[in-house]
This record gives sequence, C-alpha cells and structure tokens, in this order.
Amino acid sequence: MTDLADIADVGRDARRGGYSRHGFDRVELELRQWFTEEATRRGLDVVPDRNGNLWAWWGKPGPDAVVTGSHLDSVPGGGAFDGPLGVVSALQAIDLLRAKNFSPAKSIALVVFVEEEGGRFGVACLGSRLMTGAISAEAACKLTDPDGVSFGEAAHKAGFDPLRMGRDEQALRNIGRFVELHVEQGRGLDVPVGLASSILAHGRWRFTFTGEGNHAGATLIEDRRDPMLPASQLVLAARRAATGGARATVGRIVPNPGGTNVIASSVDVWLDARAADDARTREVVAAISEAAASAAREEGCEVRVTEESYGDTVHFDTGLRDEISGVLGGVPALPTGAGHDAGILAGHVPTTMLFVRNPTGVSHAPAEHAEADDCAAGVVALASTLEHLAR
Amino acid sequence: MTDLADIADVGRDARRGGYSRHGFDRVELELRQWFTEEATRRGLDVVPDRNGNLWAWWGKPGPDAVVTGSHLDSVPGGGAFDGPLGVVSALQAIDLLRAKNFSPAKSIALVVFVEEEGGRFGVACLGSRLMTGAISAEAACKLTDPDGVSFGEAAHKAGFDPLRMGRDEQALRNIGRFVELHVEQGRGLDVPVGLASSILAHGRWRFTFTGEGNHAGATLIEDRRDPMLPASQLVLAARRAATGGARATVGRIVPNPGGTNVIASSVDVWLDARAADDARTREVVAAISEAAASAAREEGCEVRVTEESYGDTVHFDTGLRDEISGVLGGVPALPTGAGHDAGILAGHVPTTMLFVRNPTGVSHAPAEHAEADDCAAGVVALASTLEHLAR
Repeated sequence: MTDLADIADVGRDARRGGYSRHGFDRVELELRQWFTEEATRRGLDVVPDRNGNLWAWWGKPGPDAVVTGSHLDSVPGGGAFDGPLGVVSALQAIDLLRAKNFSPAKSIALVVFVEEEGGRFGVACLGSRLMTGAISAEAACKLTDPDGVSFGEAAHKAGFDPLRMGRDEQALRNIGRFVELHVEQGRGLDVPVGLASSILAHGRWRFTFTGEGNHAGATLIEDRRDPMLPASQLVLAARRAATGGARATVGRIVPNPGGTNVIASSVDVWLDARAADDARTREVVAAISEAAASAAREEGCEVRVTEESYGDTVHFDTGLRDEISGVLGGVPALPTGAGHDAGILAGHVPTTMLFVRNPTGVSHAPAEHAEADDCAAGVVALASTLEHLAR
Repeated sequence: MTDLADIADVGRDARRGGYSRHGFDRVELELRQWFTEEATRRGLDVVPDRNGNLWAWWGKPGPDAVVTGSHLDSVPGGGAFDGPLGVVSALQAIDLLRAKNFSPAKSIALVVFVEEEGGRFGVACLGSRLMTGAISAEAACKLTDPDGVSFGEAAHKAGFDPLRMGRDEQALRNIGRFVELHVEQGRGLDVPVGLASSILAHGRWRFTFTGEGNHAGATLIEDRRDPMLPASQLVLAARRAATGGARATVGRIVPNPGGTNVIASSVDVWLDARAADDARTREVVAAISEAAASAAREEGCEVRVTEESYGDTVHFDTGLRDEISGVLGGVPALPTGAGHDAGILAGHVPTTMLFVRNPTGVSHAPAEHAEADDCAAGVVALASTLEHLAR
C-alpha cells in the first residue's frame, strides 16, 4: 500500500533534522516522479499544467471535476506530514473507492502544487498563485533562491516553459469542487478529523537594515551604525505587536557579511505576520515597521520594507463545508493560522479542507506528527467526501 | 613592481562586496601560490612550516632571524588591505633593501600566516596559535567550516600533515625579532605610520539558544518557545555592556532551520567581546551571558555558551618599540582593538607592529582604505626597521 513510509528517506535534512524539499529541487523532482508512478500504476492520467503543478485524472479531464491534492515540498527542516499527507491520502482514497467498485459520475483529479511553502523562492503557494493569477508569471519567474537561481530557470530546467505560465482559465474551469486534506498545524482538534472554517490574513515582509560595516574590535561603540541593533529590536517589536490572536514571527535573519569579528553592513530580516482580518494584520505590521524605523534612526541606520507576499483572510465556502460535515456525520470546523493552496483556490472555486488531528500542535519542524489511526480516519473521510461529490 | 593591484581580482565577493579569502580555500591557495612566485623571483627560499604557514628566507633559515609578515586571508566581504598590505609591503621592503645593496648580517624571513581572521574555521590567528601551541593540533584540526569540512581535512588537501601540526619550537627559535606591518583599523593615527602599544583582551563566544521549532502561523503566541527572542535580547545586552572603551558585537547569527514561516528551533549567535584587560572582558561577557540566560528563561528556552577563543591583553615589547621609534625618527604608539598574529607571537618573542594610517577608520569592510603615499611610507618604515634589526 502507498503510504508516507514510501518517501520517508527522500529529502532528509541531516543538518536541520526533518526534511528539506523545495520546488523543483532534486528532491521534489524525485517526489514528483514517485507521484507520477503511483498515479500511473492506478490507471490515472498524469498531466502537468503550464505552471508546474501535476494533475492525475480518474476520468476525462474537463469542467466540474472533483479535485483533491496538496503539495510535496516542505519548509527547510520540515515535518513528514505537511503536504505529503494530503497527496498520499488522496492516492489511498482512490484505492478505497476502487475497492468498493465506486464509479464516479464526475471526473476526479489529484493535484500536486509546486512550491507551496515558498521555502526556495520566498513566495508561498506559488503554483496555485500562478494558476489563479494571484501572481503574474513575470513576477514569479523573477523570484530567486538563495543561490541566485530564478524560478523561471528552475521551471525551465524541469521541463516547463516560463513564457506559457500564468493564470490558467482551463484548469480553473476544470475544478468543480476542491478539497485539500492536511495535517492540522495547531492543537485545535480533539477528534481525528475536522474541517477548516477560515485562514488568517497573512503575509511576508522583508526588512533590510543598512548601517556601516566595520571592524568589531577597532571600531569605538560611539562610531558604530550597526544594523543588528534595529534588526533585534524588530524581533522584540514583533512579539509585542502580536496580541489578541495575531501572530508575528521572525525565523529568518541574514546579516551581511556575517563574520564573527565584523560589524554587519546590512541585515535582512523576514517578518511573517498573520491576524484575523486585513485591517488587524496591517495594524500589526505597521506597529512593527514603526518600531523598526525608530530603532534604525536611533542607530543611524536605514530600513527598507518590501512586502513579499500577502493574502487577505480566507473564509471557506460554508455551503460546501456544511454539506461535507453532514456526509462525515458532523465534524468540527476550525480556523487556522496556516496558509494553504486551498486558501488561494477558495477565491475562485468552492473549496474546503479536511484537517487530521495533530496531537502536539507541532508543525514546520521535524517533530510534526499525526497518529496512524487519525491518518486512516482522514483517508476514509476524504474517500467519503470524493464519493459524495463525484456521484 | 609588486603591489596590491596584482591581487586585486583574486577572491572578490560579488554578493557581499570586497573580498572573501579564507584559509586553504581556492582563493587563499591562489594567493599563496602568488606569494611563492613573488618570493622565489627575488631569490628567497620558500619553506612551508608544519602548521600551514609559508616562510620565505633571505639568508639561511636559522635562529635569531628578523621576521616580518602578515596574512592573505580576509573576513567574509573584507577589505583589500587587512593582511595583504603587510605581505606586499614586506616584498617591497626587500626590494628597497636590495636596491640600496644592503647585505643583512642576520637572516631575514617573510611569513604568511594561515587563517588569521578565523573567517572559515572560527578561530582567529589559527596559524600562529598552532605554531606557538596556543591551540592544540587536535583542537585545531577538529574545527569545521560551514560546509562541515574540518581544518584537518582542508590542511591535508593543501599538502599539510595534520599529525605533524602543533607547537613548532624550531620556528619559534628562528624568530629573533618579529615585526608585522598592518593597516590601522580605527582612526587612531594622524600621521602616515605608527607603532602598536597593545591589543585589547578579546575572544569569541558562541551562544546556542534552544526552543521549540513550530509553525509561524498556526502556533499561538502563548504556546511559543522562540529562541529568536533571547537571541535578540543578547544583541541589545551586548551593546549595553560595552561601556568605557569595551566592545561587544554580534555580526553573525544563524537561526535553525531558517525559514520565513517557521519558528526557529534553535539559534546560534556569536559574540565578539574585547576590553582593556582580562577582568573587564570577563565582566562584559558575564553581564551579556546573564542577560541571555535570563531572556532564555523568560521564553522557556535554554542557552549554552561556548568560548571559541580567547586571548588576554597583549603589551608589545616596549624596548623594541622605543628602539624602532628612534629608527623612524619618533612615531606615535597606539593601542588597537584588533587581534593580530603579532599579538600571538608577542608572548614568545620580542614583537612590534607598524600601523599604516586608515583615513576613515573603516576595516573588515569593502570600504577599507589607505592612501598610496601612506602605504609607501609604511614600506620605507618597514625597510628601515628590517635594516636596523638585521644589520
């Protein structure tokens, strides 16, 4: 039987722990190949779209299909479940439906979105954003990874034509209903399976602090313009601003040049901020930006802020949610702070999400976990959902 | 004529600006080759020592020689002068002495020390520390670069035998007097050339903060144990503690795993701290460590502190300094906050340093500069010094 153990050795990160699997890198390409083989073995037709996403069809590709799927990439040093659980569960759900000789009236498609985490090119949900036109092909193809390789180059190398990327009307028309199964990423579920109600508004902002690079020993304190000072103030300001359910996090900071005996000349800090709605999110980011600007001024430094990505609050289709909850015998609906391709699609097609319980609430880390029984319950719930929608 | 322009294209760092030249990397090996050719062209005998340092002899290698030299490696994104100026000036000084038909009574040697900045393996003055026994061969060979390559492996690849490394009595006996010419790294000189009086006590400490890696969106603020918080407090505490001429700097910080949408599970922060004497330096580091520990506790994190290197205050030989000052017609003596191989040697042999004026005080940065006239004055001063000592 196909399960997560099949790919347990692919993309392990020896330094960070967990997995590092990023859009179009060697490891993600290996996982795409694995998915292609698994789908083909089931008689599904695997068809890549123009934007780097993979589709596997049970039935003829065309409008009003029932579509499920997730992603195979991870954050750097991520867990085994975030993404792959949705892909593996989709394959297992197909097996369940086949085993009971279900014959779908509507086509069913499995989809694997590329670069959902933005772990390589910086913008999350890149494949679904491209498909829906939430990001232009031009902007996406210019994004670069830490080695300076652009998304356009990486896509080209993987066999996709950057000039053909961009909003894909045909693909969107093909989706009648979209359902993504995903491991829950907080501790919001006390039963094996739930449904998503909403996703916090969220975005990423890069703050570049510029000061004066100099010698850590020979430069008097009073002569310094050290951008590490305001950068550190930003981290603390983010925590202060994240009140009332909002979240603000700095998990990535890169001083340049990054020498122990060197006062940095500049520091890049990435802020991840999320809140219940647009206004509150903007308020949080504004408070943090103000603190950063004030701390920069105090140190004689400059700061430039770039919004790298942003998405308003997602409210999943309530009609579809109630319908699926009925099919599943009544399951709880819960909001999440985590972004998903389903959140991008929700603005275009009726979309819902199934969450599988996370006993510790840990995610984006090697310790991420879901119990086997809960995962099995997730597959059953997904199969029932697909059966209901495709009949 | 040999000058810095000869190596101006070697090891440029396109991303950081300036130069990145590190012990036994491709670039430093190219510079060693360049030095070997320049020395050989002058009829000097180039002899590597057991610890990776290069020696070029004018006269028979043996005790009581007059030795000058510096290093060819840089900090990441460093300037053109720090290190290479001392090597190039030594070659030029030999040319001046030859031009005037000076015939030294004592042998003169030029030396290039390996990994002076610690930019690759983390411990500064590694070549001179090994030679003097300030670090054991075993400890040095275990040091690793960011790619996990050990100093022992890199040295072996460069043709050195790690098993033969360690305190080199013969090399130390060969040094009768040591003089290092170096660009000044503050704004302490208002004449072209000066002499060093002392080096601040200084060291490097690595703080590893450990918390809980998790999802930046799905994890409630109250559930977090985010090591970026105490790491940032450390940066601010370092600034607060650096009073009365002490210096404390964080120029290098590495969150693990380092994803934008990931709460770090751990953060490494390197502290560079320096002060007038041992007691004051220890006091500064203790104050910062205390603040770090308290901030870690407050966030439910742990912190581990490792002293990566330490050197007490260096007072250069006053007799030798007064003697050279006399030879040079009276030049100012000044303390420095920067560490040097000369500082390591000063505990073993009579040592002095010539400083060349730095008009802006910028060092360890691409903007580091010294005027051509001042560099020329440095060469003349070094030639006079060698002539006086070797006659």
